[in-house]
Parts: sequence; C-alpha cells; structure tokens
Amino acid sequence: MRPAALDWSVDNCTIARAMAILGERWTVVVLREVFNGVRRFDDMRERTGVPRQVLTNRLAMLVEEGLLRREPYREPGARARHEYRLTPKGLDLWPVLVAILEWGDRYLADPGGPALTTEHRDCGARVGVVLRCADGHDVASARDVLPRPGPGARPRYATGMASATS
Amino acid sequence: MRPAALDWSVDNCTIARAMAILGERWTVVVLREVFNGVRRFDDMRERTGVPRQVLTNRLAMLVEEGLLRREPYREPGARARHEYRLTPKGLDLWPVLVAILEWGDRYLADPGGPALTTEHRDCGARVGVVLRCADGHDVASARDVLPRPGPGARPRYATGMASATS
Repeated sequence: MRPAALDWSVDNCTIARAMAILGERWTVVVLREVFNGVRRFDDMRERTGVPRQVLTNRLAMLVEEGLLRREPYREPGARARHEYRLTPKGLDLWPVLVAILEWGDRYLADPGGPALTTEHRDCGARVGVVLRCADGHDVASARDVLPRPGPGARPRYATGMASATS
Repeated sequence: MRPAALDWSVDNCTIARAMAILGERWTVVVLREVFNGVRRFDDMRERTGVPRQVLTNRLAMLVEEGLLRREPYREPGARARHEYRLTPKGLDLWPVLVAILEWGDRYLADPGGPALTTEHRDCGARVGVVLRCADGHDVASARDVLPRPGPGARPRYATGMASATS
C-alpha cells in the first residue's frame, strides 16, 4: 500500500526547519543551560565543556534566530559583558525540552535515575508533557494521532504519481 | 548571583544523551517519515532527498539505538527487502515530534500555514502538547516550572566551588 504522505512535498516542513536550528550540535544543550539559569558565557563553557568557538557560534546563531537576546551586565571592576536571556520564541521551546528530557529519562538515564527533574512551582510535583487535542481530549498514544496535510501542504506532483516525473 | 545549576554535573544529562541521537542531521526527519507511514528506504529517499549513504547510516543507527526495527517484505517478483517500523522506544518520541512541529508551525511556517497538521482519531481536532504536573495541574508557562537536581544528580565539586579545582 502506497503511503498517502508520498503525495505531499516536504519542502516546507516545519519539523525540518526547526531541526535545522535545534539539530546543530550543542544547540539544545546551550538552551538547557539558559533554562537552568546559566546565562553567562564562561559559566556555560565551564559546565558544558563546549569548545569556546563553538559556543560563540551557537550563541550567535540563537540570537540571530531570535531565541536568545543579549543583556549587558558588569561585574565590579570588570568590563561590561553580556548574558543571554530567552526571548518569547526561546521560552516557547520549553515543551520541546521537557519532552526530550522525559524521553531521555525513560530510556537513557543512569541506573541512579535522572540528573535533572522538574518541579511545578505551585505544588512541587514533577512536570511532563501530555498530548491533548484542541477539543480538550487527552490523547493517550501516537496511534490516536493522524498526520494530515495542513493548509500549507503542497502536492509533490500535479498527477499525484510519485514516479511519473523526476 | 551564582546559578545553583553550576554546582551540578551535566555528565549524565539525559537531554544531551537524547540529542546525541536526535541531533544527528536527518534523524528527526527520518523519524517523521516513519510516523507519517513512509517506511521504505526508496520512498524515504525520494521524498526527503537525504543522500543514500546518509539515510543508510541513520536507519542503521536508529535500529541500533532501538527506535526502529526492520520488518521484511517482498514485492511480487522482487527480492525480499526491509521496511522500518517504530519500536515502543521510537513511538514514545511522538510527543517530542509534536512539540517540535508545534513550535516550528508557530515560528517557521510559510505564510500559507503549516504543511502538516495532526488530527485526533476520535474527534478530528488538532493535537498538540501541553505541560502538566504529576498532580494533574496544567502548567501554563515555562516560568512555572523549576529545574531541580534529580535522584541521579552528581555534584560537580566536593566543595561546591566552581573554580576551586580544574
């Protein structure tokens, strides 16, 4: 059976576009640092071991993509420097990081358990992600979610035949 | 103010471990294909344009990591081949992909809208991710989630002083 997805172009797929940002080595690790309150270049470098030039590039890319912004600060007696803060676009990545953390904790944690956990500010319970539909139903499984062409979907071929044209 | 996170090691961070798998170029795109029902090598290659050798490597890695499994099939008159199916470990990545899709659709979609949407099998409404704590409260914002050391957290230094040792 021919998958229906073959009729649709992936040229404007937003998963691929998001991964062009998030898939760069160390990007998500840098975002994790900022979400954890580690906002300064030297602190990030010391904690993560990311090479200096790579960290410089990643931070510049995240600023350019609008996920982080630079904020000046000055330690007593030192020159003015910048720290990195999340923009709304960056903050909106939090569900992505929590989803990655949950999956990682389930399958990749040390026997002693996860290194990091999350706490709901109001009640102290652990925070995770759940799937929910726009009508408010909880969605238990990936099997209950059907991928469909969206409003911006583009047919791959006018005929819909994958092998008709090159 | 010194961020508390600096006292804790990131050596066993499961976000970094997850990104070592998901961050490889094309990995998430390949998973997207399988979630969309595109399970065969030639179909994936044709739709995504991933170079043949890269796709071979990614699929082998995803099988080795236990996210995909190979299932034999045979077209009439052709030799036996394999298609790729999600394992439970792979299926559990669905919230990660949906979270990436939602963020991508919000910030990176074409003016015409997202290429792909999701549909709840039961009611047809769009499916997204929401943050929820273990006590069942919806969590509206990243600001309501506090990162905390988990059971497997390791102090970075016995003294807790970041600069005391190298």
